[in-house]
Amino acid sequence: MTSTLTESPAVQRLEAALAAITAAGDEGRRIFTRVYPDTARAAAQASDLRRSAGKRLGPLDGRIVSIKDLFDVAGEATTAGSQLLQGAAPAAHDALVVSRLHAAGAVIIGKTNMTEFAFSGVGINPHYGTPGNALDPRRIPGGSSSGAGVSVARGMADIAIGSDTGGSVRIPSALNGLVGFKPTQARVPRDGAYPLSFTLDCVGPLCRSVADAAATDGVLAGTSDQPLPSRAVAGLRLGAPRGLLFSQTQDAVLAAVELALGQLATAGATLSNESLDDLLGEPFRLQEGGTLVAAEAAWIHKAGVATRPEAYDPIVLGRIRRGQTLDAATYVGIQQARAALLPALDARMAHLDALVLPTVPLLAPLIADVQDEDVFLRTNALLLRNPSVFNFFDLPVLSLPLPSQNGLAVGLMLVGKRGGDRELLALGAAVEALLRVT
Amino acid sequence: MTSTLTESPAVQRLEAALAAITAAGDEGRRIFTRVYPDTARAAAQASDLRRSAGKRLGPLDGRIVSIKDLFDVAGEATTAGSQLLQGAAPAAHDALVVSRLHAAGAVIIGKTNMTEFAFSGVGINPHYGTPGNALDPRRIPGGSSSGAGVSVARGMADIAIGSDTGGSVRIPSALNGLVGFKPTQARVPRDGAYPLSFTLDCVGPLCRSVADAAATDGVLAGTSDQPLPSRAVAGLRLGAPRGLLFSQTQDAVLAAVELALGQLATAGATLSNESLDDLLGEPFRLQEGGTLVAAEAAWIHKAGVATRPEAYDPIVLGRIRRGQTLDAATYVGIQQARAALLPALDARMAHLDALVLPTVPLLAPLIADVQDEDVFLRTNALLLRNPSVFNFFDLPVLSLPLPSQNGLAVGLMLVGKRGGDRELLALGAAVEALLRVT
Repeated sequence: MTSTLTESPAVQRLEAALAAITAAGDEGRRIFTRVYPDTARAAAQASDLRRSAGKRLGPLDGRIVSIKDLFDVAGEATTAGSQLLQGAAPAAHDALVVSRLHAAGAVIIGKTNMTEFAFSGVGINPHYGTPGNALDPRRIPGGSSSGAGVSVARGMADIAIGSDTGGSVRIPSALNGLVGFKPTQARVPRDGAYPLSFTLDCVGPLCRSVADAAATDGVLAGTSDQPLPSRAVAGLRLGAPRGLLFSQTQDAVLAAVELALGQLATAGATLSNESLDDLLGEPFRLQEGGTLVAAEAAWIHKAGVATRPEAYDPIVLGRIRRGQTLDAATYVGIQQARAALLPALDARMAHLDALVLPTVPLLAPLIADVQDEDVFLRTNALLLRNPSVFNFFDLPVLSLPLPSQNGLAVGLMLVGKRGGDRELLALGAAVEALLRVT
Repeated sequence: MTSTLTESPAVQRLEAALAAITAAGDEGRRIFTRVYPDTARAAAQASDLRRSAGKRLGPLDGRIVSIKDLFDVAGEATTAGSQLLQGAAPAAHDALVVSRLHAAGAVIIGKTNMTEFAFSGVGINPHYGTPGNALDPRRIPGGSSSGAGVSVARGMADIAIGSDTGGSVRIPSALNGLVGFKPTQARVPRDGAYPLSFTLDCVGPLCRSVADAAATDGVLAGTSDQPLPSRAVAGLRLGAPRGLLFSQTQDAVLAAVELALGQLATAGATLSNESLDDLLGEPFRLQEGGTLVAAEAAWIHKAGVATRPEAYDPIVLGRIRRGQTLDAATYVGIQQARAALLPALDARMAHLDALVLPTVPLLAPLIADVQDEDVFLRTNALLLRNPSVFNFFDLPVLSLPLPSQNGLAVGLMLVGKRGGDRELLALGAAVEALLRVT
């Protein structure tokens, strides 16, 4: 399917994507905060000209790409899903990943809606509206890269670029039936991306295949275009961290995950149950009094919260204000504990190729059901729970779509080794191929 | 002089050093918190045996080395100049730098006294006493590596290993007429060194020559024994940051520094005046409400301050308690600002080989004159002012002794490029040779 798409002219695929956005009407404006028809058409035409001349800039040449509303585009204010930044000074330069996408021949179609300042996993936005889930528009899209996920799932882009501080790429991937990839933190530069957490922010793609994720990862990381090594499922050593991160999981999600694990075992992977709760529970225990994300957001938003609190999403404002209460010594203590926990989990994963677990324990809930603030916060905490652990441990993670339950989507996370991003993608391609045909 | 020392048998030099400690009586016990006569004798004998057999482990083989009281020695509680840690569990392993010194054939003679928890630059210690300055025992030794500086200056060790968070190697070097070297932070591992600041702690030597500093640096950094490149003073581009860091400088100190700068210019170095106060003043401006060091110390000492405040030096306790008042968002803001300031100063120094300035603006004051807490805090702030700036900017710094004024010592700081530690040492050797003969 991917190869068919890339073989048709870029201008034709772009027009189809633009038409899909237009056809969606108001919903299109909830998915995209901006659309770039003119520059995108020029880029698509240039790509087609290169193709006619037998030249390509790499695997993203001519691919239709959306970017999350927090990446700088020169000449535009970067609003990051907020009202507060609507009057901000225009960005002087494109974000570094945007420059790399242009240089790779990608066709950037627009900027996608998101949770305000990327600060929650549900995908609700009071300023720009909430895009409906691609599989059922009455349901949440997942966030914070809400429009990113929906843009790909609804054929408005081949690939979306998101950011992921605690799951913001993987949650909408899981809930919209996509592949999502969060790299090792240092792999992709964040220059020109509006920050949520200096410690934890990562940049990665949401797309339809591991091949696309790998191609995009190569471009975002600025590495040369090296094909993934070929891996087989047979012999893979996969560990399921049963315990905390399998708890409170809806039956439909658990059934889909267990089915996939069974298929992997049948195909010759070695599945083990791993008791890792002593480590995987630490991010929660350490951050009971306040999180790294909230403390860092409290600094970023110090002036905004002081001068224009009414411009914030009240839920985001509440989370930032809780960050203001954390003292520096406790923050230092969390960072020090984290530095010791990283190698501790590395050692406990050394005998495995990857961990496997549900990306999120829920099917996408109805938007109407998360209007109550307590329900919202509980849902948000559950959505972020599994993904955020691996931001804390700074490991690369791939979320793969599992066959839909009741027409909704389930995600399976594969967690790799720090810096072993390409190995994880290679492994993920083998798992994807198995699950697709089984 | 150094070569004479290294050519006599290690056992003979060790006995002279041990005799000097013994002869100093109570003062010896204020300089050294522990002495290791038995293991040191065995190490010295082994070194002499190697020498007879024509084998050496490198340039520190058989050198007499003291270590600051904050480095772990297996089997001993590490007290870090405190009463609080006297009952701590014995260290399981030697600190990594201690292991490297042993492996290099160094003869470790003992542990030197220090400011409690390394948290000030004067060198007063209410628990173990205050070693007198080697040039005038009524005067402060400088700190926090107080015993370290005095041990070398009084011939009780060839080389002392100290730590430097805001000047703790360079201040006692300057006040006792020694060479002191603070490396780029990441160059020397801190494993097994009791921490003061995770962000700023560095480990380096106090000694009598740049050659010794370079040899020790190589061992501490775990690099192979490569000789320093040869540099000439003629053609060196040296910048004097006249302004804040030359202010409040005693006449005698300024005279010695100006004389040295004149000698350097006469020998063909290019001396420029650099206006850098917009950057060099930032560490103070940013940390007015609380410092990185205090916030990190507040975490390290959270339990100690809560349960046994009476065991602390009241002045150290006061500084830690101020650290407890800093909020996490402000701490994050200081770290972010620092990350941006580092490359900014790098760029402004790009046309220079080094900055040159007084290590400290004072001759060593009388111990009697710093008993008043306000005077102590003012003196401490002045002593730390110049050195601490370059911990904040994470640059390697060498302090060279200038000819004594009134029998007291003055230090000249040479500030290099981040990671350019060996280039700075090479440059420093050329400057040292010039100043020694002129």
